[in-house]
Amino acid sequence: MLVNGEKQRTVAVMDRGFQYGDGVFETIEIHHSTPLFLAAHLARLVQGCQQLAMPQPDMGLIRREIAQLCLQVDNAVLKLIVTRGEGGRGYRQPEPLALTRVLSVHPLPSYPQAYYDTGIVARFCQTRLGLNPALAGIKHLNRLEQVMACAEWSDETVQEGLMLNLSQHVIEGTMTNLFYAKQNVLYTAPIVDCGVAGIMRAWIMTQSFPVVEQYFSAQTLREADEIFVCNAIIGIWGVRELAGRCYPIGHLTQKLQHALAGEKQKQVAYANI
Amino acid sequence: MLVNGEKQRTVAVMDRGFQYGDGVFETIEIHHSTPLFLAAHLARLVQGCQQLAMPQPDMGLIRREIAQLCLQVDNAVLKLIVTRGEGGRGYRQPEPLALTRVLSVHPLPSYPQAYYDTGIVARFCQTRLGLNPALAGIKHLNRLEQVMACAEWSDETVQEGLMLNLSQHVIEGTMTNLFYAKQNVLYTAPIVDCGVAGIMRAWIMTQSFPVVEQYFSAQTLREADEIFVCNAIIGIWGVRELAGRCYPIGHLTQKLQHALAGEKQKQVAYANI
Repeated sequence: MLVNGEKQRTVAVMDRGFQYGDGVFETIEIHHSTPLFLAAHLARLVQGCQQLAMPQPDMGLIRREIAQLCLQVDNAVLKLIVTRGEGGRGYRQPEPLALTRVLSVHPLPSYPQAYYDTGIVARFCQTRLGLNPALAGIKHLNRLEQVMACAEWSDETVQEGLMLNLSQHVIEGTMTNLFYAKQNVLYTAPIVDCGVAGIMRAWIMTQSFPVVEQYFSAQTLREADEIFVCNAIIGIWGVRELAGRCYPIGHLTQKLQHALAGEKQKQVAYANI
Repeated sequence: MLVNGEKQRTVAVMDRGFQYGDGVFETIEIHHSTPLFLAAHLARLVQGCQQLAMPQPDMGLIRREIAQLCLQVDNAVLKLIVTRGEGGRGYRQPEPLALTRVLSVHPLPSYPQAYYDTGIVARFCQTRLGLNPALAGIKHLNRLEQVMACAEWSDETVQEGLMLNLSQHVIEGTMTNLFYAKQNVLYTAPIVDCGVAGIMRAWIMTQSFPVVEQYFSAQTLREADEIFVCNAIIGIWGVRELAGRCYPIGHLTQKLQHALAGEKQKQVAYANI
């Protein structure tokens, strides 16, 4: 773990990340020592800093630290956090300002292979995503809604909870973005007023399948041909059961899983030229 | 500064306060070594823990630590933070769970006496308070909206920014609750979908003046007879200017300031019996 370049496992109590959740983060898969989708992750980090009116961190330095940590592991998860640093008068940021940069490496979560092969069970959460256009899209450190949604169930046979916004549109999972297919067209919710604009979601939207961004209800989702969730760590998981109804792991889900496996191989090969 | 009873100034990077803003806090005035409105602050902390589905911390222990810190200072600010502790699988809380408890003492902010005597200048912020019923009322650590609202101005002649909700109702200040008076009736916004249910706001509502909780627009506020903001540290400040319009520091504001001064004296005297 590196905190501002030093090997340590703590941050100051007065860090604004701890005091206010005043920062952004990225969760990056390291595959065969290669940080996957790195450019996209770093671009979102920069975008998040802009949206929060934070100065841009030294991206060259962050890239070098990521490279240094990746050399030491094969497959792992890299978490990168950038906060507005210490101090300030209450909520007002200090002048001058010194960002805090935390890079930490963690084991890949040990999900059963079956989640990938035959899909997961999902449920609907009661906790709603609040309406917050100013914070929508970015991965900021204010994550209480997701924490509360996850606290709704303890049944280990359910792997993901789906969250609705205040207008009862289905937006995303607690840790994933959500797509469904109907008659060979993919649908996903717009990330405008709430939610995270995921790296995997963005990659899927660049593939050669028609994707429509539009709001949809839980009822529309129930009538889907196939449903899947995605994020940068799990990749793509089909949903085989949602709210008591069963779904096939359909051909669009499988094609995207296949394409993603190829993309990951390509990125590793490219990094090792 | 005490972190879980130990004198230290850091917390673990993996603390959920830092990772997710997963916790609650209180900011308490210490006046002549007495923590003011302590019972109300601790009650709100407990309420916040319940709302976030966190276990209740050991309140006896917290009271003892507060008493220990208060002995060492005369007038100061005590910040008390309770987070869901370290670990967990992603957003899901760990089992078993060990809360993190941070108590820190800070100098009272050195505001000019004129803010109290002759009032402050306020402005309207562009940043809106998002709609989030599940998190409304409590003082949780997800404070990015307030950070962003404060970043809107740097003009030091403006002391507070007023925040509207997404329906354009005026709710509160970035660090204060807001009241206005019209024809000898006080008005303040309901804290239902957003905002903080302040300790000072609650105390004011127990005083012998009629207070109506209802939504109001910026235009209604402009036509107020008097306006004031309040929190547990500043007490009550009249607003002498808002968006280019001037207001008197009226008799209701002054009566409440006077009553509050008496209440503080009473609490100090009571603590020293």
